[in-house]
This record gives sequence, structure tokens and C-alpha cells, in this order.
Amino acid sequence: MKYFIDQLHNKIEEKNSRICVGLDPHLNLMPENILRPEILDNLEANRKEAAAAVLKFNQNLIDAVADLTPVVKPQMAFYEKLAVPGMECLWQTIAYAKEKGLLILLDGKRNDIGSTAKAYAESYLEGEKIAADAITINPYLGSDGILPFLENEKKGAFALLRTSNSSAGELQDLKLADGRTVYQAVADFLQELGSQYLGESGYSNLAAVVGATYPKELKAIRAQLDSVFFLIPGFGAQGGGAADIKAGFDKNGRGAVVNSSRGINFAYRKAEYADLGPENYAQAARAAAQKMKKEINNVLNLPNT
Amino acid sequence: MKYFIDQLHNKIEEKNSRICVGLDPHLNLMPENILRPEILDNLEANRKEAAAAVLKFNQNLIDAVADLTPVVKPQMAFYEKLAVPGMECLWQTIAYAKEKGLLILLDGKRNDIGSTAKAYAESYLEGEKIAADAITINPYLGSDGILPFLENEKKGAFALLRTSNSSAGELQDLKLADGRTVYQAVADFLQELGSQYLGESGYSNLAAVVGATYPKELKAIRAQLDSVFFLIPGFGAQGGGAADIKAGFDKNGRGAVVNSSRGINFAYRKAEYADLGPENYAQAARAAAQKMKKEINNVLNLPNT
Repeated sequence: MKYFIDQLHNKIEEKNSRICVGLDPHLNLMPENILRPEILDNLEANRKEAAAAVLKFNQNLIDAVADLTPVVKPQMAFYEKLAVPGMECLWQTIAYAKEKGLLILLDGKRNDIGSTAKAYAESYLEGEKIAADAITINPYLGSDGILPFLENEKKGAFALLRTSNSSAGELQDLKLADGRTVYQAVADFLQELGSQYLGESGYSNLAAVVGATYPKELKAIRAQLDSVFFLIPGFGAQGGGAADIKAGFDKNGRGAVVNSSRGINFAYRKAEYADLGPENYAQAARAAAQKMKKEINNVLNLPNT
Repeated sequence: MKYFIDQLHNKIEEKNSRICVGLDPHLNLMPENILRPEILDNLEANRKEAAAAVLKFNQNLIDAVADLTPVVKPQMAFYEKLAVPGMECLWQTIAYAKEKGLLILLDGKRNDIGSTAKAYAESYLEGEKIAADAITINPYLGSDGILPFLENEKKGAFALLRTSNSSAGELQDLKLADGRTVYQAVADFLQELGSQYLGESGYSNLAAVVGATYPKELKAIRAQLDSVFFLIPGFGAQGGGAADIKAGFDKNGRGAVVNSSRGINFAYRKAEYADLGPENYAQAARAAAQKMKKEINNVLNLPNT
């Protein structure tokens, strides 16, 4: 079970869960018992305190969802926003999630020429003591910028294919002379490139990001690709629902995980969990993760254990 | 002179220099008097010492080239590779270069959906005490992922258009149904999107990255775009020469800067500067920067002052 993608499939089976919990600490959505709102008035002077609050928030969240999710996905921008203390918090979050047996997909969408891509891969996927298991990347530079992330078979990369944002189509939907769209060409390119990195699961260590917010495209891409695993963001806060993501899975309910970040992290702000109160945000997050796990298993006709 | 792009044009005029000095601290290329080679045997345990060495290296380099270049470009991957101490070093490098009157173009090729792109922009372009002046970004997600970097008119963004690496064409050269290539479509898209952010110089705060290693494409893109400023990487170590980059400038020798990183940072390793010895790496870097500045001015028929 050395391949990253096989480790991921195993964790999914073990927990009977196809969700990925994003760790996106939007400071302005934090419960007041975790982050004093006054900090936001002068964040630059209070980065250390903010980073300590984020770490505590993440640890409670991880404790609340660790048995419900195979993988967590810290969004790097929210840690980078707190500069040096933020990066410290990111590494501490990774270490904590690893202790709890979770896989770590770092969401950084890194990309560069080969020698620099290698430096990014070494930054985040290597390290004796602590490292992430996979990272999101952007495929615009072609294979040179992707292959350095695949050198270690225990690690994986998730390349953007069709993103979940509203302007995704501006470049991704352009029509090519051969009849494909740009994103369909990226899909073929990723499957071809990833075919050298197939695990026992039949899927590749080169996975792809395909948004839940475009269910028609998601269905078409799944039909096009049989060995590319999908991370499906855009569930919840961005508008995708369980019926939308069904088409991202193969006929056995394999080959994908669905991410929710704000919808779980800040579930305490939703009307349905309002009774719990902000101080019980972790309990609200657990309830939201449980609900999402169940909804996805239901739509895939899988048992809920 | 509030617009970023006008500040950049002013600095170029002031120094009569169209170069950009990359700050890419490849640890294995460092002079031994700066970084003890044994550190590389166990980098994880010695990140603090390595980061302190990089800072010293950068400061000496900045001192050596500050009067020769309008702008420096730290490549984030090499700082991220040193984790928390590396990020500390990056911010200290930015502060030092700012003190020396240089503009800072942060090379991070960041990209994400709008709310996350905003967090990146806030991370690196805002901040009362210290921030970069511009950042490189990846355009694959369309306008949502770009506009947050342009909200502050004193700051700029450089979007990848045609990159300098050997696999650049795998996706960027795909032919569209309308006869353009993907990169030509990205070019039109960037010019159109950037037209709302034009400075007095006639150029936009939304600039583009176009590699020196593809002179034919560079020429065609310059002919296509009259208000998009170019960062031209790939000069020197990657193989581009002065004749190759001429076509990236407008007829007045404006509208672009040419980046060299390894060719200046590690000039001491070249045969022509070998007599100086590794301990005089900053002197070698200065000589290489002077030579590059002159070559570019010559090829553009501009006086060398």
C-alpha cells in the first residue's frame, strides 16, 4: 500500500466516508470565544494571537471530524495571510491532523518551471518529521511543472481541471480546433501523464480538481477519465449539493472525495445549528460533516455505517 | 504616480535599466563562505541557519545591484522550502530591498477562487509596515481569481501568459477553433481585463509573464498587446539572450523588464568571473547585472548611462 492514491482509497473504505474537510480559517467567521473580534482591527500587530486562535480552532475541528473524514485540506492562503506565525500554525495543524490518522491534502495550487516545482514539492511533500501527503497544483505550465510533485510514489498531486468558481469557463471552456474544450484537453493530458503513476486501486497519483458547481461538466469528465481520482470542491457554501456530485464517482462509488470547507468549519453560523451556540462550533461542524457523509453515501446507494 | 505600473516605469527610467534581478536562493549553489555545505546533509534540523545564510546572501546581493535594477523578484518556492524560518527570511529580504528603494515583485504564481485569491492578495500586497508591490499569478481560473490582486491601484499582478519552460506549449500552444492558440487567447483576455487598470504610462497594472526562450511567440504577443507590460524570464541560465528579448519591448524600448535569477545570483560560478573567487559572489553578481543591463540597452539602441 505504498502509493498515495491507494492510501487514500484505504482511508475512504476504513471510514466509509467520501468527504474531505477543508481547513479554511476565515478570521471574520471565527467564533468569538476563539478569536477576540478586536484582533481584526489591527491584524498585523496581532498575528501571533490570531495564529494561536486558528490552531486551537483547527485542533478542535480535527478532533470533531477525525473519525468521519479520510482527509483534511488546509487552504494555504488563510495561513499565509498571517505571515510567519500563520505558516507556523499551518505546520502545527498538519502535525496535529497526522497524529489523528488523517491524510493531508495541502491546497496551495502551486505551479512553476521544473526546477522551481521541485523546490515546492520538497517544501511540502518531503521532510522526515512532517509533510503533507498531497498538494493541489495548476497545470498551465505542462508536464515539467507537474512531474516533480509525483517523484515520490507515497505522495500525490491534484491538478486543477475544471474549477468551481463562476469565471472558471472564461479560459477553461474555450473551444479547441479538434472539438474539445480546454478543460477536456487538460483532462486527456492529465490522464495520459498520470498513467505512469497508477496504484493498485486503478487510479493515479496524479488526481484532478473538478468543481461540484458544474454537474454537467463533472459528469462528462468522469465519463472521459477512468483512472483519474477527483477532488470535488464547491459543495455547500459554493452551492453544490449531493445530487450534483454523484456523477463524479465511478459506478462503485469510488474515485472521488467531495470537499466542504466553510460549510463544515463555520456550520455553527447556519440556522439549523444555531441552538448549539458559537462556543459549540466543533459540535456543529461534526453534525454538518456527518450529514454530508450520509448524503453522499445515500446518493451513491452505499450503506451508512 | 500612484499606479504600480507607473512606479515601475519611473524606476526603469531613473536607473536606465530594464532588468529584474531574481532572488532564487538555490542552496546547493551557494558559496561556501555563506552556507556551510554540511547544512545540506540535514536541512530539516538546520533551517534556521540556512535561512540566516540566505538572508545574508540576499542582502549582499541587493547591495551589489541596487543601483542597477528597478526591481527584484524573490522566488517564493526557495523560501517556502525552509518552512517557517524561510518565510521569515522572505519578509526580511523584502524589507531590506524596500529600504534600498527597490520594487518587489513576488514570484509565487498564486491562483484560486475569488475569496481565496483575495486572501492571497491581502497576504502579500497589503500590510501597513511591509508588503510586496506586485505578485505573479496564474490565470487558469479566469477573472475571479485575478481581480482581487488589482483592487489596490498601487499594486500590480503579472499573469502567466507564455512560460519559459520546455513543456510550456503542451497546453499553451493548443489551437482553438477560432484560429488562436490558448496563449493568444490568454493574451487577449489579459489585455481586455487589464484595460480597466491603465496607468499614465499607457500600460496596465495587470502585466504578463512571457518567456525569453520563445522569441517568435514573444514577438507575436508584443504585436498583439499594446497595453500589457511584460516580465520576460528565461534570460541567461534558461538560454535566452539579448537578441531574443528585443521583440518584447515596444518601439520606444518600454513595456518590459527582463529577469535573470541564477545567471546573476550565482555568476561567481561562471568561467568569466572565476578569478573573483566564491567569496566575492556579490561582485560577480554586480558585474553580471551590469553586463545584462548594457546588453539589453544596446539591443534596444538606448544609451548606456
